[in-house]
Amino acid sequence: MRDRLLAADTVKAIDWRDGVLYLLDQRALPSQHLWHACADAAQVAQAIRAMVVRGASAIGISAAYGLAMAVRQRLAQGDDWEMALEEDFDLLVHARPTGANLFWALNRMRERLLRVKEGEDVAAIMLAEAVAIHDSDREANLTMAQLGVELMRKHQGNEQAILTHGNTGALATGGVGTALGVIRAAHLEGMVERVYVDETRPWLQGSRLTAWELEGAGIAVTVNADSAAAHLMKTKGITWVIVGADRITANGDVASKIGTYQLAVNAMHHGVRFMVVASSSSIDMNLENGEDILLEERSASELLDFGDKCLGAAVEAFNPVFDVTPADLIDVIVTEKGIVERPDTVKLAQLMCRKRLH
Amino acid sequence: MRDRLLAADTVKAIDWRDGVLYLLDQRALPSQHLWHACADAAQVAQAIRAMVVRGASAIGISAAYGLAMAVRQRLAQGDDWEMALEEDFDLLVHARPTGANLFWALNRMRERLLRVKEGEDVAAIMLAEAVAIHDSDREANLTMAQLGVELMRKHQGNEQAILTHGNTGALATGGVGTALGVIRAAHLEGMVERVYVDETRPWLQGSRLTAWELEGAGIAVTVNADSAAAHLMKTKGITWVIVGADRITANGDVASKIGTYQLAVNAMHHGVRFMVVASSSSIDMNLENGEDILLEERSASELLDFGDKCLGAAVEAFNPVFDVTPADLIDVIVTEKGIVERPDTVKLAQLMCRKRLH
Repeated sequence: MRDRLLAADTVKAIDWRDGVLYLLDQRALPSQHLWHACADAAQVAQAIRAMVVRGASAIGISAAYGLAMAVRQRLAQGDDWEMALEEDFDLLVHARPTGANLFWALNRMRERLLRVKEGEDVAAIMLAEAVAIHDSDREANLTMAQLGVELMRKHQGNEQAILTHGNTGALATGGVGTALGVIRAAHLEGMVERVYVDETRPWLQGSRLTAWELEGAGIAVTVNADSAAAHLMKTKGITWVIVGADRITANGDVASKIGTYQLAVNAMHHGVRFMVVASSSSIDMNLENGEDILLEERSASELLDFGDKCLGAAVEAFNPVFDVTPADLIDVIVTEKGIVERPDTVKLAQLMCRKRLH
Repeated sequence: MRDRLLAADTVKAIDWRDGVLYLLDQRALPSQHLWHACADAAQVAQAIRAMVVRGASAIGISAAYGLAMAVRQRLAQGDDWEMALEEDFDLLVHARPTGANLFWALNRMRERLLRVKEGEDVAAIMLAEAVAIHDSDREANLTMAQLGVELMRKHQGNEQAILTHGNTGALATGGVGTALGVIRAAHLEGMVERVYVDETRPWLQGSRLTAWELEGAGIAVTVNADSAAAHLMKTKGITWVIVGADRITANGDVASKIGTYQLAVNAMHHGVRFMVVASSSSIDMNLENGEDILLEERSASELLDFGDKCLGAAVEAFNPVFDVTPADLIDVIVTEKGIVERPDTVKLAQLMCRKRLH
């Protein structure tokens, strides 16, 4: 399975080459494939803010490369480089607020920096750490894909109709994806009849990115309006809703793409199983529950404008881009450390105590 | 209240003038105000199909004027005019499938035709009947607005946060609207803190039409993505979801704009009251329940394209534009004949037996 998944993984969104970070510009997909070059931390932070790169894991990985570039550049500037580096850290860590992986990755970089010994090549070590974060995310994706598909098989081994939301694939991670990784693995095992993809307003992660990834993987895919999800659950025999996460709190509450919460309520109403797939770097044991998560709100223009044209009326808009799904609506959280069914504080604590695979 | 509502009703979408039906083109709103002239039944049917005019009541009224024009034109053609008129009837009645008012209005026109006596001016009588249908919808709106607001006051008389979906206002009816009529009346009574409007993909009835109507009426309005509705219910103190209907079956199931069902499930989960407002011409006592309703599906391009540009991936799309909300998720149906709380077959039958006000 691992090799087949890797072989099928043809989309790459983050490319480190010749000391520069290249990001596949997700604002332009699927109609255009543009690579966006970032040569320093400020450019990486700007690319994260502008959603050239998005997806909790992909943001974390990009920020790690950004900090590695900053170390190299600050070192060249002279003695006070470690103080100056804090500015780069701050810039990157505040690029977007909701996803946990950004802070996790930057913190891992900082911890590595503290362990560098006299005389070692700091820049090389920090770059290696960024590459390791990237590689470990790829491995975590593969592990989660296998765990998720085993879990699906426990319930039903035949072809199933699956509903997903947002984009949680190769474009959002360092590998085959989280929720989309499970779906890809299920497809390879002959367990996917069709994947229904919420278009995922306002940014259309579903109809632009996920649909494109699934089509490319040869998986039967149908796009629907977000508001059609309940109607689909009632009429299309959906057995699983499979989604990703941007931050999971100690009790198992999940911040994810806006609309995930609404899907979870509807999944429970329709007896559809609800799976969250996220690497353990999305788990934030410092937050007790979902109420503590800062949910990003973005510009009204994402809702009201298209290009330079205003589609809507000239009114106020509320554009939260994440919401919180409470743990009690979630059947299972799949991480690379293992699976947590009916998540709660005790089970999450047990999971996070296990030997770190990631 | 009646006079204040009428005074506040400044939007007109259907205008009969000099023997021609003028429709305010709802595809172009709110950025452009174009009047679309229909000079015969075929043009009216085409305008309905293309959604120049939409909203169950507005479609019914437009079709009635279309049939009145057809009578005048067929009469001028000679003896076989009643046979030929059947073609016009067929064309109009099949323009869109889900809304009940289209068939109701055309059937009312046909019944009037059967009662025309020898020597009467058929064309004038039929035009008068279309005008009567238009007028009675305006009156029904006013009655529903008053009944709806009385019902709201029973629960809570202070300023409230309301969520609505689609467009059910002056643009969708012959008067102040159904759900939006209740909201306008509540505003006049000082009972509206803010109206949250789902943008209502794919056609954006919410962000284009409803937001524009509410803004024009001086009502505090905020547009949100459809998928943010549950998050709003949890965080913004929404007390009522108020929506319209396109067809209500004998047991109280409601076909309405896609996404209404999902809202109803979420309203129940959050303890938010759910009100459906529709004139009795939307009630179809010939259908036992929602499973019998033909739900229109429209082109994938509504989801995937903007103008001549494909936004999404080149994949299949499922675009049902209505869904069915089962009666047991509905707190109350408001019609001009009265209010039905916790609707069921017995209560709907009682309602429809009452003296016809409409």
